[in-house]
Amino acid sequence: MLLAAALATPSVSADEGMWLPRQMPDLAGPLAALGFTGDAGAFADVTAFPLGAVVSLGGCSASFVSPDGLIVTNHHCIQGPLQFNSRPDRNLMVGGFLARERAAELPGGPGSRVFVTVAVEDVTAAVKGNIPPDVTGRTYFDLLERRQKELTAAREREPGYRCTVSSFFEGLQYLAITQLEIRDVRLVYAPAAGIGNFGGETDNWRWPRHTGDFGFLRAYVGPDGRPAAPAPGNVPYRPKHWLKVSAAGASPGDLVFVAGYPGRTARFPSFDTIRETVEFSLPRLLQRSPEQIALLERVGAEDPETALRVSTRIRGLNNTLTKTRGVQEAMVRGGVLAQKEAAERELLAWIEANPVRRAEYGDAIPGIRTLQAERARLRERNLLLGEFTGAGTALGAAESLHRLAVEAAKPDAERDPQFQERNWPRLREGLERLQRSLDRRADRALLAYHLESIAKLPADARLTVLDRLVGLTPGQEPAAATAAISSWVERHVTASRLYERDFRLGLFGQDPAALAAAADPLLQLAAALFPVQEQVRTEAKDYSGRLARLSPVHAKAVLAHAGGRVAPDANGTLRITYGTVKGVESRDGLFYLPQTTLRGIAAKATGTGDFQAPEAQLAAIRALRAGTASPYVDPRLKDVPVNFLSNVDTTGGNSGSPTLNARGELVGLLFDGTYDTVASDYFHDRERTRSIHCDSRYLLWVLTAVERADELLGELTQVP
Amino acid sequence: MLLAAALATPSVSADEGMWLPRQMPDLAGPLAALGFTGDAGAFADVTAFPLGAVVSLGGCSASFVSPDGLIVTNHHCIQGPLQFNSRPDRNLMVGGFLARERAAELPGGPGSRVFVTVAVEDVTAAVKGNIPPDVTGRTYFDLLERRQKELTAAREREPGYRCTVSSFFEGLQYLAITQLEIRDVRLVYAPAAGIGNFGGETDNWRWPRHTGDFGFLRAYVGPDGRPAAPAPGNVPYRPKHWLKVSAAGASPGDLVFVAGYPGRTARFPSFDTIRETVEFSLPRLLQRSPEQIALLERVGAEDPETALRVSTRIRGLNNTLTKTRGVQEAMVRGGVLAQKEAAERELLAWIEANPVRRAEYGDAIPGIRTLQAERARLRERNLLLGEFTGAGTALGAAESLHRLAVEAAKPDAERDPQFQERNWPRLREGLERLQRSLDRRADRALLAYHLESIAKLPADARLTVLDRLVGLTPGQEPAAATAAISSWVERHVTASRLYERDFRLGLFGQDPAALAAAADPLLQLAAALFPVQEQVRTEAKDYSGRLARLSPVHAKAVLAHAGGRVAPDANGTLRITYGTVKGVESRDGLFYLPQTTLRGIAAKATGTGDFQAPEAQLAAIRALRAGTASPYVDPRLKDVPVNFLSNVDTTGGNSGSPTLNARGELVGLLFDGTYDTVASDYFHDRERTRSIHCDSRYLLWVLTAVERADELLGELTQVP
Repeated sequence: MLLAAALATPSVSADEGMWLPRQMPDLAGPLAALGFTGDAGAFADVTAFPLGAVVSLGGCSASFVSPDGLIVTNHHCIQGPLQFNSRPDRNLMVGGFLARERAAELPGGPGSRVFVTVAVEDVTAAVKGNIPPDVTGRTYFDLLERRQKELTAAREREPGYRCTVSSFFEGLQYLAITQLEIRDVRLVYAPAAGIGNFGGETDNWRWPRHTGDFGFLRAYVGPDGRPAAPAPGNVPYRPKHWLKVSAAGASPGDLVFVAGYPGRTARFPSFDTIRETVEFSLPRLLQRSPEQIALLERVGAEDPETALRVSTRIRGLNNTLTKTRGVQEAMVRGGVLAQKEAAERELLAWIEANPVRRAEYGDAIPGIRTLQAERARLRERNLLLGEFTGAGTALGAAESLHRLAVEAAKPDAERDPQFQERNWPRLREGLERLQRSLDRRADRALLAYHLESIAKLPADARLTVLDRLVGLTPGQEPAAATAAISSWVERHVTASRLYERDFRLGLFGQDPAALAAAADPLLQLAAALFPVQEQVRTEAKDYSGRLARLSPVHAKAVLAHAGGRVAPDANGTLRITYGTVKGVESRDGLFYLPQTTLRGIAAKATGTGDFQAPEAQLAAIRALRAGTASPYVDPRLKDVPVNFLSNVDTTGGNSGSPTLNARGELVGLLFDGTYDTVASDYFHDRERTRSIHCDSRYLLWVLTAVERADELLGELTQVP
Repeated sequence: MLLAAALATPSVSADEGMWLPRQMPDLAGPLAALGFTGDAGAFADVTAFPLGAVVSLGGCSASFVSPDGLIVTNHHCIQGPLQFNSRPDRNLMVGGFLARERAAELPGGPGSRVFVTVAVEDVTAAVKGNIPPDVTGRTYFDLLERRQKELTAAREREPGYRCTVSSFFEGLQYLAITQLEIRDVRLVYAPAAGIGNFGGETDNWRWPRHTGDFGFLRAYVGPDGRPAAPAPGNVPYRPKHWLKVSAAGASPGDLVFVAGYPGRTARFPSFDTIRETVEFSLPRLLQRSPEQIALLERVGAEDPETALRVSTRIRGLNNTLTKTRGVQEAMVRGGVLAQKEAAERELLAWIEANPVRRAEYGDAIPGIRTLQAERARLRERNLLLGEFTGAGTALGAAESLHRLAVEAAKPDAERDPQFQERNWPRLREGLERLQRSLDRRADRALLAYHLESIAKLPADARLTVLDRLVGLTPGQEPAAATAAISSWVERHVTASRLYERDFRLGLFGQDPAALAAAADPLLQLAAALFPVQEQVRTEAKDYSGRLARLSPVHAKAVLAHAGGRVAPDANGTLRITYGTVKGVESRDGLFYLPQTTLRGIAAKATGTGDFQAPEAQLAAIRALRAGTASPYVDPRLKDVPVNFLSNVDTTGGNSGSPTLNARGELVGLLFDGTYDTVASDYFHDRERTRSIHCDSRYLLWVLTAVERADELLGELTQVP
């Protein structure tokens, strides 16, 4: 009922939001106020036009742009396929790639996926109904997890589909989302890095921006039209819906929609949660990310193969670092934390002012605070353990293999969801894909780096198994710890065979005895670490179960207090957001104009560092300047628009999302937000938030004037 | 006649220009087009209001703002007086200073001057008339110099006046400018560095800007009303004219005038001259300035006294470096050099197209090119010699003392102008003022630095006297050269007594024999270097004499070709420029709004580095935010304006210039230009050039709300 109220009452919040498609019909009013004359209800059906064309790549968004399964997304979303197909002497991440015919398209590599959302069902009652109110903690967690597994299993009976039961409004609502899972995804086109990543880290999160952050993939299915493993005989997937690419792009004042799969926001959680982020998590990231970047750059400088393998990780860490800096700045100096605190103070006063509300909501915020405080002592230790055994190193592979061996011995329904049979192919692909980035030099440096931190843990929060195995003791001389770590890492990494693709994949699905027989030192370590990891996981489940009793109550209070339409936090599911193309006074005295143009590329292109525009592009710009006509020149700007700003509400995961005009035509690709926007994952700033899009005219101009990609242009349905 | 034409014909150039006051009546048309309803002729008379209130500080501009000789200028223009009165435990450059009564005003220190322009006469015929056309080179130079000395001497007969004969339009015109020279200048007010230099090097040449770059001095004269040496019995100077400070400041779209003493521009010189700058001089500065900054910072870190002494030099070098980077960027990547080349190509074609023009102007540009080429071989050697013996070190003092000893033996009229008797007081003051910044640590580092470069000179351009004295040879092992330099510098700097104020001043005006008797190693070096320096000077005079036959012809051609009003290059004389308060699209996608406000100070004030706003100021901003009324709040901005942009045409030397509205009221202080503007010394960019001003409302607000400087506010005539 609260949800219904949230959807029905008009409110100032209507501008903010990564809306569920089902919320769109209720936004007809605010949309009409922005000049929308279409049917807001058209956005409610995920299987109809235009949402039917909007897909997830798992971490990025994308859309079909031809009846033959052609997909457009961001350049930075196809780094995996580019890295997979790169060699030191043929680096597609730098040089780009264009398949001038279908036969020339390259494999996307293991793990490349396209997910097409086909159904969204409210399963709140099935997940949470009929549980006595005193069931909590681990028991409650397990019960919710088991019911979600059952709902998922029922929806995955037909092969080729994948179901996820997702929590909305902090567990107040659950939706089962079913997606077609396409597994043969091929690389069609990526511009050179000098276009696709023009500006690089220097311009990341910045404006003015001049990035051609686009690329094309193609979805293939078996000859029967159903998802199939990559195979030469597969045929292009024929989507029910695809978007037309607008040759008119977007202009200031235009109403635009962005449909995609935003990853995570945390606007609902309580002030204490956000404060923990600001006071603990972000400073920790701000210290550790630059250290890891420096370390990976150092090992990359020693060897070009290593450099290639660590490049994507460095790019990711840099992106995280820049974002984290911006978040921290906005939180503390920009006053976001203070705003969040004030908002919660208002909420608490509202709750306290009324005995019914006090009875219903009064325990949630204090309860969450207590839960958090309990976890503080082991927080750092558990994070370090997770990072030490985390993905990216051969130890991460060992941990996956060991857990799989343990979990596989259980009945499927009782396994940890990550290790259920439905996830085995992607686990296996993950271990295969690891070959692109796995590197002994990088592992030595990273494992030693994490162990150095582990060695410094306080006496009441040690990882005793590592103390014993590596030879660490609390209060040890730092030099002695370093010597012990260095020799231990050297022995383990050198002796491990998990760096060999076939050895690693050969162990996939083996039982613990078989793994032990392999006598690999990293597998032995994984086995030794397993009990403490299980203990951490059990504690986490208990915590989650207790939190699952409190946070929906908190969310309910927030919704009731807001008294209007509110969008749930992003959680990787299909959303739609709308807004206007417009600039912003970013800082006192400084205005971000809403559009950039080719002029700016020519001005930035120093030919060095992050600004190495390809000569073909510079020549095309000169030709345009000299009078060559182009249909993509904006009459007002007298130049081809490159990027534009809008106040749509997006976050990571939205990358590659189509930007649509009121007619559902693709006028751009969402690819970033401004630096002022990064904290909006926690608290949305209606005035200053701006997303950054690539104008469809720039995409078409590059394909035409720079790449002369006639085949690709011919396949795109372009509307003037 | 050409000049007359240049002044009479309307032209697109009318926007560009640091105009001679006498040119202003002819600009009535363009001024009317900007909405000016006053009398443009009022700006022609340097002794009338408002120009009569505009003074030079020698390197900076300023203006009288009270009938009691109160002067307002930039904070960065009073660094000398602040440094002179600072001690390590009482650093006025950091903490600021306010004299709440006249008796508390501090001495400006040796060399502090106020120059009030009282007459400007055209003396072209007296300088250049009646010289046979075949007189050139050294002879021509000497003749022009002698005539200028005579003109100067005639105008300086009455004590207290100083005359300069300046060349305009590359020697096409000469004006004799007579100024009253006030020698008792006292420090009245400087804000803390956190206001006066807020933003520091980070924001230097940048926008958005939030600098309170203002400060006050007072001019004192003898009881008889005539200029006098600093003395307790002196009385405030009573200027004929002073400016009223506007409490309304300047707003976007306002017409503004800036009157001041711009230092140097080089828009007239030929393309080859500019190319030499871009290809040789600027890259050289870009290499050497950071090296010297690093070196001075290193010695400053060793000792707090040294740090204080080198701080002004470091600030100056940093400023030069930032500007040079901007100039080089604009010249090469921004296409200024290409524009200059295209403009000259057009000029050459125009000359070639007509036999009369070819006969008159045809030789100038090729002649200048030939002259330049001749000087290339010894260019680096001569620059290094000049830098090695240049100002700032004790060797510079030794050189001055030695040259004075040699020149003093000649009749005054035959002396080098710098060493004529009229300049002895300022030479002596220079040697006295040196005490603020002279430092053995800095000298050791700087002299060694220059000698390291001298050691690397090619065999055909050696400084043989230094080779012999220091023990350098071409092609020597670098380590051997370094060892020789280090031991030589150590011996000379340690043994020299020129670091002692009294010793140094005691040698002032002594003859060469007396200097030799002092047996100071740096004086001995200065004597040893004198012959090669004289040779360099003689060659330079010959070059100048030959150039003086060519460059006026070139300037004449430029004027004739332009066919409209053109302002001469800046040369440190009183000029007036006008324009509009307006923002600018600085880069593709980025717009500089025309004003900044207190909000921006609060946002930038991190309390660290260049952004340490005083707590009193932050409290005043908070009070304003909390509702305290202020007459200086702009109704549109709803905040106190801090800095603003306009398209007036200014350069170094203009610092401290009053910005006037159409009624001649002081609405701001000019203090900087944007980074896009730095190359306008060479080629004026009408679209992007912006000067940066401090709004008079910010000045008044700081005096009111931060300093509570009631006495000073009472003295200023404020107009609402």
